Amino acid sequence: MSKKNVPYRVYLSEKELPESWYNIRADLPGLSPYLNPKTKEPVVPDDMKAIFPMALIEQEMSDERFIEIPEQVRELYRSFRPSPLCRAYNLEKLLDTPARIYYKYEGNNPSGSHKLNTAIPQAYYNYKAGIKRLATETGAGQWGTALSVATQLFGMECTVYMVKVSAMQKPYRKLIMETYGANVYASPSNQTQTGRSVLEKDPENMGSLGLAISEAVEDAATHEDTNYALGSVLNHVLLHQTIIGLEAKKQMEKIDEYPDMVIACCGGGSNFGGIAFPFLHDKIRLGKNIEILAVEPAACPTLTKGKFAFDYGDVAHLTPIIKMYTLGHNFMPPGIHAGGLRYHGDSALVSKAYHDGLIGARAVHQTDVFKAAVQFARSELILPAPESAHAIKVAIDEALKCKETGESKSILFCLSGHGNFDLTAYEEYLSGKLTDVEYPDEMLEKGYESLPTV
Amino acid sequence: MSKKNVPYRVYLSEKELPESWYNIRADLPGLSPYLNPKTKEPVVPDDMKAIFPMALIEQEMSDERFIEIPEQVRELYRSFRPSPLCRAYNLEKLLDTPARIYYKYEGNNPSGSHKLNTAIPQAYYNYKAGIKRLATETGAGQWGTALSVATQLFGMECTVYMVKVSAMQKPYRKLIMETYGANVYASPSNQTQTGRSVLEKDPENMGSLGLAISEAVEDAATHEDTNYALGSVLNHVLLHQTIIGLEAKKQMEKIDEYPDMVIACCGGGSNFGGIAFPFLHDKIRLGKNIEILAVEPAACPTLTKGKFAFDYGDVAHLTPIIKMYTLGHNFMPPGIHAGGLRYHGDSALVSKAYHDGLIGARAVHQTDVFKAAVQFARSELILPAPESAHAIKVAIDEALKCKETGESKSILFCLSGHGNFDLTAYEEYLSGKLTDVEYPDEMLEKGYESLPTV
Repeated sequence: MSKKNVPYRVYLSEKELPESWYNIRADLPGLSPYLNPKTKEPVVPDDMKAIFPMALIEQEMSDERFIEIPEQVRELYRSFRPSPLCRAYNLEKLLDTPARIYYKYEGNNPSGSHKLNTAIPQAYYNYKAGIKRLATETGAGQWGTALSVATQLFGMECTVYMVKVSAMQKPYRKLIMETYGANVYASPSNQTQTGRSVLEKDPENMGSLGLAISEAVEDAATHEDTNYALGSVLNHVLLHQTIIGLEAKKQMEKIDEYPDMVIACCGGGSNFGGIAFPFLHDKIRLGKNIEILAVEPAACPTLTKGKFAFDYGDVAHLTPIIKMYTLGHNFMPPGIHAGGLRYHGDSALVSKAYHDGLIGARAVHQTDVFKAAVQFARSELILPAPESAHAIKVAIDEALKCKETGESKSILFCLSGHGNFDLTAYEEYLSGKLTDVEYPDEMLEKGYESLPTV
Repeated sequence: MSKKNVPYRVYLSEKELPESWYNIRADLPGLSPYLNPKTKEPVVPDDMKAIFPMALIEQEMSDERFIEIPEQVRELYRSFRPSPLCRAYNLEKLLDTPARIYYKYEGNNPSGSHKLNTAIPQAYYNYKAGIKRLATETGAGQWGTALSVATQLFGMECTVYMVKVSAMQKPYRKLIMETYGANVYASPSNQTQTGRSVLEKDPENMGSLGLAISEAVEDAATHEDTNYALGSVLNHVLLHQTIIGLEAKKQMEKIDEYPDMVIACCGGGSNFGGIAFPFLHDKIRLGKNIEILAVEPAACPTLTKGKFAFDYGDVAHLTPIIKMYTLGHNFMPPGIHAGGLRYHGDSALVSKAYHDGLIGARAVHQTDVFKAAVQFARSELILPAPESAHAIKVAIDEALKCKETGESKSILFCLSGHGNFDLTAYEEYLSGKLTDVEYPDEMLEKGYESLPTV
């Protein structure tokens, strides 16, 4: 089956936009509840009311298999969705592989990534709850950009705490958020008690994601009209992202295809869950024979070297304690270029699926990742984000295996975003300055030590 | 006619990709020939053989109305074309206008603009002629990026002379070209006699587009295996760009629409000619009542304040002398942010159409342009290039006129590229630092003085 008649881009009409998100909680029995960080008792909805609207808390805990997408969200989705499913003919030719490579491209929107898929419904539900402002943190900047856009659409304010070192390294990211109307503060900032106390001790502190989360959560918890928004990890975030996989299934159906493999990079797990869960549904409920792979950096090997344990989501112990694969919340990954994949933990849903053997995981090195990224850019003409390039690396590996075996597998991966704001990383790679980092076991051990006893 | 059922995005299938470009020369009788810069006699094909392949020289001079797009070019177009025609529902809502606003979005490709539409066929014809390398200049960087991508697709080398001040202001643009395999030299460079002689006199010279053109032309003329490629102005460039308007016509037909107005920004004229000429065909040959507007910066008012005269395309008098609207080849426009619109002249075809009263022109100020750009970004979710935002500004003006008169005009404009690499310009605007520049008449007079006598 060569599928030679498949077009380069498979589109869906706006009428074919899915009407519901898929909630994998319904098909993953045995999930552990979140624990309250203070009492270590299971979290109840009221525990989260200070920073989330009830509609999102309900989605976080719902066991309904399909959850309807509100019409107003669908309306806003329509200005950039359905996103195209692309056949990578030029990459296939370059690799001389019998594999059929497909990718779902999520970079064609102003946030430049899949993050807008959840930013819009999060802004929507908060708006409906009368919230005037959302506070969030951003590292790589894609999430902050997406939330800036989404809040703008509902006339809400947006406050972004951007890790100071990122704000300095990526001035364009700060500028695009401001263009979309957000207030961006380098974190640690003078806006919160947390930030001020850090700056008092260390005025030169360059910040961290953990610290920025604490600032955003404090901001939300201490202002009546303000809530907090998170760009990954949580169940409702992954729920919203399933629009990616649901569309991909429809698109593949249109060309009489079905993937043998689904591949995505995995940081907190939102683009991975987004493309993979609708196919995982078929594996769990319909017995489909399909291999699903999460790809992570060797420098932050959460699934491949982490422990399946209860842990905090942040350094300051403000978030719920979640049963997940984790390197320990004190684990500090090195400064690799895939900023979106530098998280110590993983979504509870992705972790459970991995623990149950439903999905696989691979850890890859960043020099290999950039080699794959450049191969992709020069053949498929899209400059991938360093995060997304992790998926490309493994898709290429698998396509080359097909070349050896002669198999014509159908490989689908998620191209979660473009790399227009990551060009300094490409420069480092092309000039031979990029290096690989792998954590020695004793340093991993140190991270594990921060795991709480529950 | 409210056209409420029009989707946000109108797509064409790849099968509907136009098979021919439209050559407006067939419908613009009375065009003056190019003159040889040395002899001032009409140019003959042999005059251009040192730097262009014969296929492109033929297209430059052809009077055939439709010219077939080679299958290999169509194949490569398919990885990013047909481009979407978008209905600007959110902008319409923001403006509260009865107008129906459409835009053709050309930014969804790695060059980030329409430039790839001509870079690919130019690389193709040179490749077929046995050329191993293309040399070009770039200012804003969009053309250099497009040619880097296109040469890469044919395994050719690419040398880009980038105006030094741009290379310093826009490091990301240099990096993206290098990622796509090009060799980028800040101009003036040590690569050419022209560059070296400038540097000898003035080592700190920051370059200009005219100088970069001279370096690229010299490079091409002095190397057997190397040709020159230009990103705008010439007939064959505008010919290739008509793919934009030809697609737009098909897309509007699908939704039972036809524009009352077509608007595009105009620097050398390539995106303007690209979207406008297929509609101008209908105006000339079918008597369609349609208003076509070219928009230029008030700081470089070529059509609105220039003279219709013979002039050189560059400072060094290496290019043919062309009958066009021009401010004089010594006119030095101020450093406005729409780098792609800072050219003293205009395409001969656009100039003739304007001279014959077939199209209109407007000059706008950059603060108004950025205001329109931010309105657009915050409603339509795409960050426009400063060049493209000139078209947006006039489209908004026209839509607001409709609000006053109650007319429901159908307005189509070309969104020729995204502004991801232009964020410092947005910052300047948002922080209130952006200013307007208009040339006093005596400075315009000085430019006119450089017009040659022929």
